[in-house]
Amino acid sequence: MNFCNLCGAPVDLVVPPGDTLQRHVCSRCGEIHYRNPKLVVGCIATWEDRILLCRRAIEPRHGYWTLPAGFMENGETTPQAAVRETLEEACARIEVDALSSLISVPGFDQVHLFYRGRLLDPDFGAGPESLESALFHEGDIPWQDLAFRSVTFALRAFLSDRAAGRFLVHEHELR
Amino acid sequence: MNFCNLCGAPVDLVVPPGDTLQRHVCSRCGEIHYRNPKLVVGCIATWEDRILLCRRAIEPRHGYWTLPAGFMENGETTPQAAVRETLEEACARIEVDALSSLISVPGFDQVHLFYRGRLLDPDFGAGPESLESALFHEGDIPWQDLAFRSVTFALRAFLSDRAAGRFLVHEHELR
Repeated sequence: MNFCNLCGAPVDLVVPPGDTLQRHVCSRCGEIHYRNPKLVVGCIATWEDRILLCRRAIEPRHGYWTLPAGFMENGETTPQAAVRETLEEACARIEVDALSSLISVPGFDQVHLFYRGRLLDPDFGAGPESLESALFHEGDIPWQDLAFRSVTFALRAFLSDRAAGRFLVHEHELR
Repeated sequence: MNFCNLCGAPVDLVVPPGDTLQRHVCSRCGEIHYRNPKLVVGCIATWEDRILLCRRAIEPRHGYWTLPAGFMENGETTPQAAVRETLEEACARIEVDALSSLISVPGFDQVHLFYRGRLLDPDFGAGPESLESALFHEGDIPWQDLAFRSVTFALRAFLSDRAAGRFLVHEHELR
């Protein structure tokens, strides 16, 4: 960040009065530009006993498999974000049940939320950010070709819960 | 947002190619400036059977009671944010147990997380953003003088769980 997005003047990196961390502060209007972690929200969506995965058409991790997920938008709730991302990336309509995993990724300034959900019908496809999407039985999940460690964690946690016959919220952090 | 924080040129509000929402896009360098919800993280911290609340020394809701909570910072995990905010606002050292409430507040582009936790010692005080802090028995909680609806929800959910002898993660949205 080099310039104030309110008035266009250069910003300085300083600790504001009463604060403890360096912030980008406008040299003209004094606006403090805070930066905060972003939420990535996705869904473990099932049809009968199979799980919906997408193969990425974009970087990072082009060609690898992932759960439908993406950055939460302003003006929506976390379950709405999970529904929207699943529609955008896998062209699939889902109903969200409940939160399954909450994963802090401090090195990337992100928090990942994965919901459990169910496809409302067995029609799905590939949105512009996906090469393809497919339903996987547990034994067929391409563990070596998953795109992100948070996806691996969320899938293992979900499968463990399903095997146990009860669902929890799993908290984790990735360093 | 009026100016690009990378190059200082004016931004336009347009739908970028392949996107579905209007974004602030730099008229010179083309940078897309996304805006996303912020995480507010706090803690329901107890000492024996009492709950730690702070009375706000800042707007909004100056003078009203709240759980220690605030905006998550880059580079930290969600439990670390709960610990830090409780130290900053109530000068209290805690250990975090688990997530208790996840509350979407789409009208304010926020998601609120409240953890359960325990004070490590009965010493606490008032940070610069608090007028005072205090421990409350359930029957003494100042329900009419709580600062935010998410705090009311989180406290009621926690107390309900404690009465039931088991703790869940409670999801909610505030419109």
